Amino acid sequence: MAKSGRDRERLGEFGIIARYFAPLATDSAALGLRDDTAVLRPPEGQEIVLSCDTIVEGVHFRKDDPPYTIAHKALAVNLSDLAAKGARPYIYLLALSLAAEPLAEWLEGFAKGLRVLQERSGVTLAGGDTTKAPGRISITVTVLGLVPQGHAVLRHGAKPGDRLYVSGTIGDAHLGLRLLEEPNLAKTWGLTKQDTAFAIGRYQAPDPRTDLTLVVRNFAQAAIDVSDGLVLDVEKLAQVSHVNAVIEAQAVPLSGAARKAVKHDPKLLETLIAAGDDYEIVAAVPAPSGKAFEAEARAKGVAATPIGRIEDGQGEVCVEGRGGKPLKLPRKGFSHF
Amino acid sequence: MAKSGRDRERLGEFGIIARYFAPLATDSAALGLRDDTAVLRPPEGQEIVLSCDTIVEGVHFRKDDPPYTIAHKALAVNLSDLAAKGARPYIYLLALSLAAEPLAEWLEGFAKGLRVLQERSGVTLAGGDTTKAPGRISITVTVLGLVPQGHAVLRHGAKPGDRLYVSGTIGDAHLGLRLLEEPNLAKTWGLTKQDTAFAIGRYQAPDPRTDLTLVVRNFAQAAIDVSDGLVLDVEKLAQVSHVNAVIEAQAVPLSGAARKAVKHDPKLLETLIAAGDDYEIVAAVPAPSGKAFEAEARAKGVAATPIGRIEDGQGEVCVEGRGGKPLKLPRKGFSHF
Repeated sequence: MAKSGRDRERLGEFGIIARYFAPLATDSAALGLRDDTAVLRPPEGQEIVLSCDTIVEGVHFRKDDPPYTIAHKALAVNLSDLAAKGARPYIYLLALSLAAEPLAEWLEGFAKGLRVLQERSGVTLAGGDTTKAPGRISITVTVLGLVPQGHAVLRHGAKPGDRLYVSGTIGDAHLGLRLLEEPNLAKTWGLTKQDTAFAIGRYQAPDPRTDLTLVVRNFAQAAIDVSDGLVLDVEKLAQVSHVNAVIEAQAVPLSGAARKAVKHDPKLLETLIAAGDDYEIVAAVPAPSGKAFEAEARAKGVAATPIGRIEDGQGEVCVEGRGGKPLKLPRKGFSHF
Repeated sequence: MAKSGRDRERLGEFGIIARYFAPLATDSAALGLRDDTAVLRPPEGQEIVLSCDTIVEGVHFRKDDPPYTIAHKALAVNLSDLAAKGARPYIYLLALSLAAEPLAEWLEGFAKGLRVLQERSGVTLAGGDTTKAPGRISITVTVLGLVPQGHAVLRHGAKPGDRLYVSGTIGDAHLGLRLLEEPNLAKTWGLTKQDTAFAIGRYQAPDPRTDLTLVVRNFAQAAIDVSDGLVLDVEKLAQVSHVNAVIEAQAVPLSGAARKAVKHDPKLLETLIAAGDDYEIVAAVPAPSGKAFEAEARAKGVAATPIGRIEDGQGEVCVEGRGGKPLKLPRKGFSHF
């Protein structure tokens, strides 16, 4: 859509905001992005759930990723947090740090990535900051969600006897990143073009499980989204809930692409369940409600798969391999530093 | 306070959060930083004012600045936005991006900078994100303030006939930055050690005008904080209010240090009124309330100085020099890109 002349037109900070971001600010709270703040009156009886995540070039996305998917990912990783809390998306702030004034084409792709996910999830832009800083692109999104008072699903609350569920499939984003870095792996793992595109899409543009918001709120005692790695994130949930968690490695749901890769290299399973960037939801659900939870998730078009259980304990996570034998994982997930 | 052995102890991302940031999260909304979100129930009858600003090493602060002042500045620039809206500080989220795991000493200084300003302003930490990304330190703070419904002071609302006021003094931060870069300028400008330390302090650790929150709310029709430059920020207020603004350059309040520098180099005045980083508040106040506004600000320990007026127009700003002659400024303020 970029017109050749426009690529070189210099808009400046405030021109960029007016042209590309103001159209995304459709809620009156945003004051049309013509103020430096947003003013909100949250609906009666609702609590606000706040989340804030940064994605950085070379860490959370690749320099050559399309601006559309970079924008999508920046917003998606935050919407994923809301879904895990049972909070519906409300508004967000965008702090965008760029090394130089970007081309019109880049900004158009970036704004489109935000717009499409906004329209799908019901969130709108309410403010932010645009900064030039030499180095890497860095994007911090702060998202506000709404949940009826007292109904937010937190990390703590899992009880011994609960079943542990995960939405969708695990490990695809890791495969996608590796396929971007070493395209020949597709042949090694016996992946079709569709498999490869699927895995790369899961890395570049993860879909937050916004559709599960109400199901999580209605059934989960505790939940967390999988961003740092399934095992590490389950451990966080277990620690804050003061329980132990058991994950049955063979029960962890894999996509067709991941099954092919694991068939070729069975040890890969241990990597995938600790790799992160999945943006699926792990929920602790009372065992008697398990089937109803699965059915409600399925009605929303999402598979919820039982992968283990909550037991008495003090925050440990045990990963069981075939025959219930505990696995020793090289790592549980991703930690900065 | 750092103990030698501790400097090398590796805490990791979650250890850093637990040791340095959890003690700053004293509001129950923060869930002790053990969740990845915060859950708030805003007080009845209040609106939420949201602001989000990023500061980046080498752009908004210097690599060698003390961690104490870096943290102070990251929070202060956001609290400054709230003060200009008449909103009292409530909670904030901190997105901290570091190139490597910092030393304990650095983290202690950083956390102390936050703690001291928290205690002074009444805000508390409620969440955030810690990221490792090669390159520059980057800090995005999202702050939430509270204001009684319908009482937020916005950029729009200035009316012809209003007096234009600014708090404190203008231009000190610019001098401070130049003194850090060229220490010999202190001699050129005839500054004492105290003058120099004052100007550097204004650059490194600007004090947000939180004390003026109620005064601004009670008297200002429109207000903005001076971050990009006095002239540019007044222009933004004028544009959104659909009025013109006149700034009398000779009326702009200068500190003792700035007066000395301007006496040595009179052209410097034109730079100082467009340099930014002041974190003072510009307010449009109905002329009949001007004296009362000044008195109330003085009662809070802050000088509010009349620097011009609002006139009919379409968003232009005119800077008058001696004898009312319009000045042609080389630039109005700072714009990224």
